[in-house]
Amino acid sequence: MTKPIDFKVTARDGEARTGTLTTRRSIIETPVFMPVGTQGTVKGVRFEWLESEMDARIILGNTYHLFLRPGVEILLKMGGLHKFSSWERSFLTDSGGFQVFSLTKLRKLTEDGVEFQSHLDGSKQFLSPEVSMEIQATLGSEIVMVFDECPPGDAGYEATKNSLEMTARWALRSKEKFNKLQNDGSDSGFLDSADGLSGNQSLFGIIQGAGHLELREESLERTVDVGFDGYAIGGLSVGEEKSVMYEVLDFLAPKMPAESPRYLMGVGTPEDLIEAVNCGVDMFDCVIPTRNGRTGSAFTSRGKINIRNAKFADDEGSLDSDCGCSVCKRYSLGYLRHLYQAGEMTAAILISHHNVYFFLDTMRRVRESIKVGAFQTFRKDFLDRLRENAPEAV
Amino acid sequence: MTKPIDFKVTARDGEARTGTLTTRRSIIETPVFMPVGTQGTVKGVRFEWLESEMDARIILGNTYHLFLRPGVEILLKMGGLHKFSSWERSFLTDSGGFQVFSLTKLRKLTEDGVEFQSHLDGSKQFLSPEVSMEIQATLGSEIVMVFDECPPGDAGYEATKNSLEMTARWALRSKEKFNKLQNDGSDSGFLDSADGLSGNQSLFGIIQGAGHLELREESLERTVDVGFDGYAIGGLSVGEEKSVMYEVLDFLAPKMPAESPRYLMGVGTPEDLIEAVNCGVDMFDCVIPTRNGRTGSAFTSRGKINIRNAKFADDEGSLDSDCGCSVCKRYSLGYLRHLYQAGEMTAAILISHHNVYFFLDTMRRVRESIKVGAFQTFRKDFLDRLRENAPEAV
Repeated sequence: MTKPIDFKVTARDGEARTGTLTTRRSIIETPVFMPVGTQGTVKGVRFEWLESEMDARIILGNTYHLFLRPGVEILLKMGGLHKFSSWERSFLTDSGGFQVFSLTKLRKLTEDGVEFQSHLDGSKQFLSPEVSMEIQATLGSEIVMVFDECPPGDAGYEATKNSLEMTARWALRSKEKFNKLQNDGSDSGFLDSADGLSGNQSLFGIIQGAGHLELREESLERTVDVGFDGYAIGGLSVGEEKSVMYEVLDFLAPKMPAESPRYLMGVGTPEDLIEAVNCGVDMFDCVIPTRNGRTGSAFTSRGKINIRNAKFADDEGSLDSDCGCSVCKRYSLGYLRHLYQAGEMTAAILISHHNVYFFLDTMRRVRESIKVGAFQTFRKDFLDRLRENAPEAV
Repeated sequence: MTKPIDFKVTARDGEARTGTLTTRRSIIETPVFMPVGTQGTVKGVRFEWLESEMDARIILGNTYHLFLRPGVEILLKMGGLHKFSSWERSFLTDSGGFQVFSLTKLRKLTEDGVEFQSHLDGSKQFLSPEVSMEIQATLGSEIVMVFDECPPGDAGYEATKNSLEMTARWALRSKEKFNKLQNDGSDSGFLDSADGLSGNQSLFGIIQGAGHLELREESLERTVDVGFDGYAIGGLSVGEEKSVMYEVLDFLAPKMPAESPRYLMGVGTPEDLIEAVNCGVDMFDCVIPTRNGRTGSAFTSRGKINIRNAKFADDEGSLDSDCGCSVCKRYSLGYLRHLYQAGEMTAAILISHHNVYFFLDTMRRVRESIKVGAFQTFRKDFLDRLRENAPEAV
């Protein structure tokens, strides 16, 4: 039986690795940063820019948000998320679990699944491994995530252990339902002509365990036992200390199956990305490039800058003199600050554009450095420069 | 002495005319719709799209807004509005007068000028013919507007007459100050290499008189007596009945100097544009393409549609099946409605884009029809089709 995705590591430098992840819809060079399109759009950045200037090959969609709005019925009628949104490259969809636990109130968690109130209208809703797999089949994403429970970052050993057990049982149920849906043609994104691939969706498992290394190891073993097309690290960057995240990454990532893509969910800053690559992680997503863009905070090679700063009012320089994006090539700090102060949405559009470009371009440079065996040099230089603007951290 | 702009009418069809307006920075085919960039950006539409896909050759900047923020000092330091904003094609700047009378409170109008409170911070500010010319020289726009007083649309004869007298005296002062500024090198947009042109700014006079035809005629004569590079019709679409606007246009436009560009300020809907072209108007500006775009209202060849309408939820069609813009070629009504309902700024970005494109494309079609002597047929067909969606008017 042919596989839904193909992953090949093409070069290593220490634990860091670069490779190619091929889905039915695009060829993705790793390590990769995946821009987040929560509701089917990357906030403020038109697909045209993501495709042409940035050459993003995969973006995220959020099951929780799309389930509530526009809802499964409309997505089904419109032929799935690719046709609905017109993004024809790859989508990764999360399972909805994380949003249920972070965005909603009045949750009732049972072995079956989780009942919750919609953050939009308070309506009662239900998600379970089976429901999540159904929604993700309707969405038709290239990478489907299992439905897991994500405990708080500071969860104690017992709570984490119990949560992990639930996640392990839900992983089995997710896989079982996922396979059924692939077989019965429910995947709206099926592609008959996926060269050498099955044309189906792929399914990634999620490793939990909070900051408890032995639970992380147990979760890893049980997830690998179930068997998935890729493996994700969940439950990091959810409120724990940064040192805990780095400790978990350092311990866990190198133990994850070497021949499968490793995905660190919801992380993070440019520094986090570099450090996780250093532990052997291949895939990332995070809302911060666009979220910060909307509040006037720009990521640059010299650290973050806040466009509201009065010193930029008559500055003819660009956000980042080392950046080649269409915003840095054209627009001055003075102009961007004016747009932001004047409440023009163009400010959010342009700064979000630069930020997403910066994240994608940083990963391109990471890949190049790994290919030539210079990742450690790159890492040191990159992190040193990031700190140049540190006093101004936003 | 060479001229700052060149205007040539190349074809006529009844009173309607098409031609070429050449400024030091661009060649503008007329009739032309000028997108409004109030604060130095066209809301939600990046310059890149305006230049490439839409090929806009001239946009507006608002003196009132730019005077208050970022202010003259910063604009001067940044080298004027072109350098500041990076828009290198033509700018037309208004005089600030209209905004003072429509946006501010506590105005004190004297022969000298008008004292007002900033709508931003309540600070006391002052604008006069001289101050307005100074600001517009700092901005460095290709087309400068005289500082006028604009009475309400329903102003009586006496009030209008008095206002008109003031406007006539201010027109003289505007011209005098303008000439001084051109001579002393205050124009930040001066272009030494403006092929065959002086490289200076041009100055347009404004005809007032509300709905009183004899006052309109008097204002026209007095404005032409002063002598300007172009003539604008002010004080329409300011609250009067639509029939009044059409009556004034019908009476006034054909009497305006035939060899100079005729500019109808702040107007209007696609229907208004066609009717004004029919009276011989060459230039237009209006905020409605972007203002409506932000509220989900799209202009189409079949009239306006409101993207919030539930019937579009699963509609795979585009905003306008006859439109060739990048939004209509790619995005479905269902997707656009979802983005709007979900509060995504991408909705405003995409609908504003389509609307501006629609206005520019309509003017392109107007020009083509005049060239081949088919304007009346075009006009009838265009207006008939516009009414197809009329029951749904927004």
